[in-house]
Amino acid sequence: MNSTALPAGGRPEEVLILGGGFAGLTCAKELSDPRFHVTLVDRWNHHLFQPLLYQVATAGLSTTEIAQPLRSILADHKNVTTLMDEVTQIDLEKKTVLTKERTLVYDHLVIALGAKTGFFGRNEWEPFTFGLKSLEDAMHIRREVLLAFEKAEAANDPAETARLLTMVVVGGGPTGVEMSGSLAELAKVVLRDDFRRIDPTQAHVHLIEAGPKLLPMFSEGLTRYTREHLEDIGVSVHLNCPVKEVGKGYVIAGEQRIEADIIIWAAGVEASPVTRTLAGVPLDRGGRIQVQPDLSLPGYPQVYAAGDLVSLTDVKGVRVPGVCPAAIQMGQHIAKVITKGDRIPYAYWDKGSMATIGRKAAVAMFKGMNFRGFFAWLMWLFVHLLFLVGMRNRAAVFLHWVWSYFTWQRGARIIMPRQQ
Amino acid sequence: MNSTALPAGGRPEEVLILGGGFAGLTCAKELSDPRFHVTLVDRWNHHLFQPLLYQVATAGLSTTEIAQPLRSILADHKNVTTLMDEVTQIDLEKKTVLTKERTLVYDHLVIALGAKTGFFGRNEWEPFTFGLKSLEDAMHIRREVLLAFEKAEAANDPAETARLLTMVVVGGGPTGVEMSGSLAELAKVVLRDDFRRIDPTQAHVHLIEAGPKLLPMFSEGLTRYTREHLEDIGVSVHLNCPVKEVGKGYVIAGEQRIEADIIIWAAGVEASPVTRTLAGVPLDRGGRIQVQPDLSLPGYPQVYAAGDLVSLTDVKGVRVPGVCPAAIQMGQHIAKVITKGDRIPYAYWDKGSMATIGRKAAVAMFKGMNFRGFFAWLMWLFVHLLFLVGMRNRAAVFLHWVWSYFTWQRGARIIMPRQQ
Repeated sequence: MNSTALPAGGRPEEVLILGGGFAGLTCAKELSDPRFHVTLVDRWNHHLFQPLLYQVATAGLSTTEIAQPLRSILADHKNVTTLMDEVTQIDLEKKTVLTKERTLVYDHLVIALGAKTGFFGRNEWEPFTFGLKSLEDAMHIRREVLLAFEKAEAANDPAETARLLTMVVVGGGPTGVEMSGSLAELAKVVLRDDFRRIDPTQAHVHLIEAGPKLLPMFSEGLTRYTREHLEDIGVSVHLNCPVKEVGKGYVIAGEQRIEADIIIWAAGVEASPVTRTLAGVPLDRGGRIQVQPDLSLPGYPQVYAAGDLVSLTDVKGVRVPGVCPAAIQMGQHIAKVITKGDRIPYAYWDKGSMATIGRKAAVAMFKGMNFRGFFAWLMWLFVHLLFLVGMRNRAAVFLHWVWSYFTWQRGARIIMPRQQ
Repeated sequence: MNSTALPAGGRPEEVLILGGGFAGLTCAKELSDPRFHVTLVDRWNHHLFQPLLYQVATAGLSTTEIAQPLRSILADHKNVTTLMDEVTQIDLEKKTVLTKERTLVYDHLVIALGAKTGFFGRNEWEPFTFGLKSLEDAMHIRREVLLAFEKAEAANDPAETARLLTMVVVGGGPTGVEMSGSLAELAKVVLRDDFRRIDPTQAHVHLIEAGPKLLPMFSEGLTRYTREHLEDIGVSVHLNCPVKEVGKGYVIAGEQRIEADIIIWAAGVEASPVTRTLAGVPLDRGGRIQVQPDLSLPGYPQVYAAGDLVSLTDVKGVRVPGVCPAAIQMGQHIAKVITKGDRIPYAYWDKGSMATIGRKAAVAMFKGMNFRGFFAWLMWLFVHLLFLVGMRNRAAVFLHWVWSYFTWQRGARIIMPRQQ
């Protein structure tokens, strides 16, 4: 099945990695030892840089700039075979993985299928909201937001116009903050001169958070700064405002009913539903796998989990968050355990947190130090360019950012057909 | 309906432009006289740079780089209102245009709805082929081509693999030449190292032409050069080979039956079907409107047609071709006739022709001078960057071209979902 030179005297061990996100891709790259043959399975042909997904959703970047084909990333890793296929079930007893197209066997299994939008058990809200976890989600939001302005320009009923120009973002974490800031700037600056019958600056962006503050992982000063800055650029921030109901064209949050077609759900994620097919493996409420300290599954030392579908309090007592650096570290850790056979426990190395709040402002936190404003924003740009996969994507994204900074334009305001 | 200052003593005359391609957009831009209120209707929100569509279809460029929102192009033209809507019928007697959403009235009408893929009456072939006229078409080809390689990597039957890796392009005009060259380079160079079970260089690209030569508008020397260069980069060129039948997974051309899922139809276009709703207006076989010398419709001096849906032998006896420069010139001409009221006849100004044949080679013809090879290719790049709308798109496309030239990589190899 592959042309890699085998080690003398035996077939290579088969490592099956499910998911080509940060965890799975990193793990595949680190397993360059020819003792192993690695198969990486992903439902898409690309690795997606999720932290910039909100910029695709708000027409700043195009889809291809934050995605890179897994095959081309792994072209020089001759012991890695990439398969585009969708995992449907894992049978730990038979050591097989069922996909839509085939049955795969493994000696070592790495489950890194990531997370999807979660509704805390209120899945009936899903049809009325937009999640933001995939390129598909981002394209969906981009199309619906741009279409809302088009429909408003053509509408004759003021109530209809107002509803079309109202957008709600649920969830005050980094994604919600970034989405709402970017939507407000889109309406109030980018589109300002482009319409004749409506005034896009009259669009209303609401950010709804159930808890008492935005970005709860940050210090009090930074969360207050975030809220004030969002309000400055025109976002209505609602705190202590849990969502009670979502339906077609409205959301009820706290005591308020907001009429809107565009309701973006950034309030929570849960593990890939494939984890529910793991018989006898302990999961948390969000479907995340409760792994052993070395990231293997209890009772299955040859099976590991990494990334957003892991629930773990690490060896230092730190709850590992669902962020890119943790996923990368887990992928590296598992590759090390598989290669060396040494079952060292994983320890999360906190590289800090950051979030943008529209153009020119961000908050960041590193090792107890707080940064905010323009300098934090430059740090954010730099770190995101650094983590983006592919030099060409880095150059293209950098170009677009410089261009947008000086012109306030966005380069991806293209409505694509729904059926394509 | 608009906020433009009216001329003293009257309402502005309503100019309705159907279609935001080169003809319609140019006409809208040139009608800056405040005596006129202009409404530009397009089914999409963007102007599309069709000459680079084949690069989107073959994963070299992303959709947003060759498209620009009509609204933002026209942001400073305050007397122009843009509407995203689809024209369904034109009633010349009632001076109204029906769209999916509304009825529009006009004083002056400009029909510039362009062309679509044409099958010379064999519309039953359409479901088995891919056209290349819209962003949707290009995305469709991109997805199916990339998926074919993915499926081939997973296939176990050699005949199946061979069929998946066979691609047919029908039509030896510029689009067919550019598509087949770009597909051959994709398979034979770009994807070379990315697969483990298949050898992408074994992919087979066929270019089928009914007539005796490729690019018939060029000189004998250039058409021969084109054919030889295409064969050098691995395209099988079939001349004098009319298509007799197309079905699911095969095409019969001349005496040959070729098994392929990917059959790209670049053999002909016909006018937008809306022209068929024009009662009493003379059309040619392709549905093109046979206009008067000043581009107005016979019997309707306030109604004009421009671009690919026009059939005209101009005042100098030259048959006007369906190319961008002609569309731009017609748009300018109509704006002048409407503004000045002076019914001068339109004369086509031939700016020459050019086509690329893969990387580093092109053919070009200007005023009887012929160019080919690397120099012609640089001319092609320069002219296409110049005509591309938007500085940012120019910069991004230039960046991608330079990058691809040195790395042989393509930046848009992303498979997007069909339902999005």
